[in-house]
Amino acid sequence: MPEKMPIKALEQQLNDVVSIKLKDQRIFRGRLTRCDMYMNLTLSDAEELENEAIRAKYGQVLIRGNNILWIQIPE
Amino acid sequence: MPEKMPIKALEQQLNDVVSIKLKDQRIFRGRLTRCDMYMNLTLSDAEELENEAIRAKYGQVLIRGNNILWIQIPE
Amino acid sequence: MPEKMPIKALEQQLNDVVSIKLKDQRIFRGRLTRCDMYMNLTLSDAEELENEAIRAKYGQVLIRGNNILWIQIPE
Amino acid sequence: MPEKMPIKALEQQLNDVVSIKLKDQRIFRGRLTRCDMYMNLTLSDAEELENEAIRAKYGQVLIRGNNILWIQIPE
Amino acid sequence: MPEKMPIKALEQQLNDVVSIKLKDQRIFRGRLTRCDMYMNLTLSDAEELENEAIRAKYGQVLIRGNNILWIQIPE
Amino acid sequence: MPEKMPIKALEQQLNDVVSIKLKDQRIFRGRLTRCDMYMNLTLSDAEELENEAIRAKYGQVLIRGNNILWIQIPE
Amino acid sequence: MPEKMPIKALEQQLNDVVSIKLKDQRIFRGRLTRCDMYMNLTLSDAEELENEAIRAKYGQVLIRGNNILWIQIPE
Repeated sequence: MPEKMPIKALEQQLNDVVSIKLKDQRIFRGRLTRCDMYMNLTLSDAEELENEAIRAKYGQVLIRGNNILWIQIPE
Repeated sequence: MPEKMPIKALEQQLNDVVSIKLKDQRIFRGRLTRCDMYMNLTLSDAEELENEAIRAKYGQVLIRGNNILWIQIPE
Repeated sequence: MPEKMPIKALEQQLNDVVSIKLKDQRIFRGRLTRCDMYMNLTLSDAEELENEAIRAKYGQVLIRGNNILWIQIPE
Repeated sequence: MPEKMPIKALEQQLNDVVSIKLKDQRIFRGRLTRCDMYMNLTLSDAEELENEAIRAKYGQVLIRGNNILWIQIPE
Repeated sequence: MPEKMPIKALEQQLNDVVSIKLKDQRIFRGRLTRCDMYMNLTLSDAEELENEAIRAKYGQVLIRGNNILWIQIPE
Repeated sequence: MPEKMPIKALEQQLNDVVSIKLKDQRIFRGRLTRCDMYMNLTLSDAEELENEAIRAKYGQVLIRGNNILWIQIPE
Repeated sequence: MPEKMPIKALEQQLNDVVSIKLKDQRIFRGRLTRCDMYMNLTLSDAEELENEAIRAKYGQVLIRGNNILWIQIPE
């Protein structure tokens, strides 16, 4: 993929903490450990947030890309 | 598939117990016995959970990948 | 398809009774007579269930795979 | 398509009366006159049913396959 | 496309008046002037109906095929 | 694309004012400046309408084709 | 891609501020830093708006294209 592809911006965040909004309005936060071009990805130390409070901790989570609305990534 | 693909993280859990959140907000827990690149998968000893209580037991279940929001997998 | 594909687990149930949960939350139960890789399938002696009671009997039914959430299959 | 494909079971019903449940929960009943592999199909003498009563008569109707939940077909 | 394809039944209605039910439950009626294999189509003298009364008149309308539930076509 | 394709009817409206109904039931009106075969398109002088009153003005807007229900086009 | 493709109009806005309406009705505003043909894109200095007031600030955000309704782009 060319360097300027949006997905490349995600790959550059491997091992960084990202926040992910899903279509069901839940937010997951965790360390990005894997991702592919469909935005399928795995997080370690994954937390589910609600109104910025931690609602659940899941350890390692695989999120299906087609459920993702957006991903907040460190600059 | 390259080793670092998210789906590979699922394949490494074959025979382990995973929890799966579906788009209809139900959670299934069971032993992962098969999976493919679309996240179609089979569980044995499958249970459906609601508020962390067991709501139903199904034995062997085939889950269609496109209904999956996320999968919690052991580290 | 390789032997370990999830869809193969379904093919091995041909002529067995399976239960199928659809996206509209209805459950069908019947003898599996055909299936393909999209989970399109036919049941004979098909019944629609609601709270485990029989709601309707349909004889032979063709179910479109993309409406399926999960399939309970005998072990 | 191999003989055992689910769609083949539909093709074998050409000229028979079938009932079709759509995703919007409406049921159509009519004589199957054409079908393709996406389950696009045409009915003649098509009726729309509600609680088993006839709600409307449409003559010839073309139904888009991706709206179909299931099709009840004579055995 | 083979002569017996469902879409062919639509092509044979070019210049005839058809009624089209959309997924948002609106009905359009008009003269079919163009169609393609995805059921994208254009109507001239298009009217939007509600409970069989005319709700709006649009002149020429291009309807996106994937929103179509069914099309009533003259026999 | 053959001349009679529905999308061609849209291309012929380049520089004309069109009205577009989206799946979320909003209507956009503006001058069509670009379009492609997926019905992705750009409008200039775009207005959002509600009950035929102007609700907002956006200048140039790119609309994603898969959200479009229908497009009213001048004859 | 030909110069007149709608997506090209987006590429020409790289480094400009755009507003993006998502299917869940949220609006994001930020500087467009990357985009691809699926409308996947990244924004820097991204803000989420509600009734034209700023609801949240996210820094860098990757938005999945298939959630986008429309993009307001400077002329």
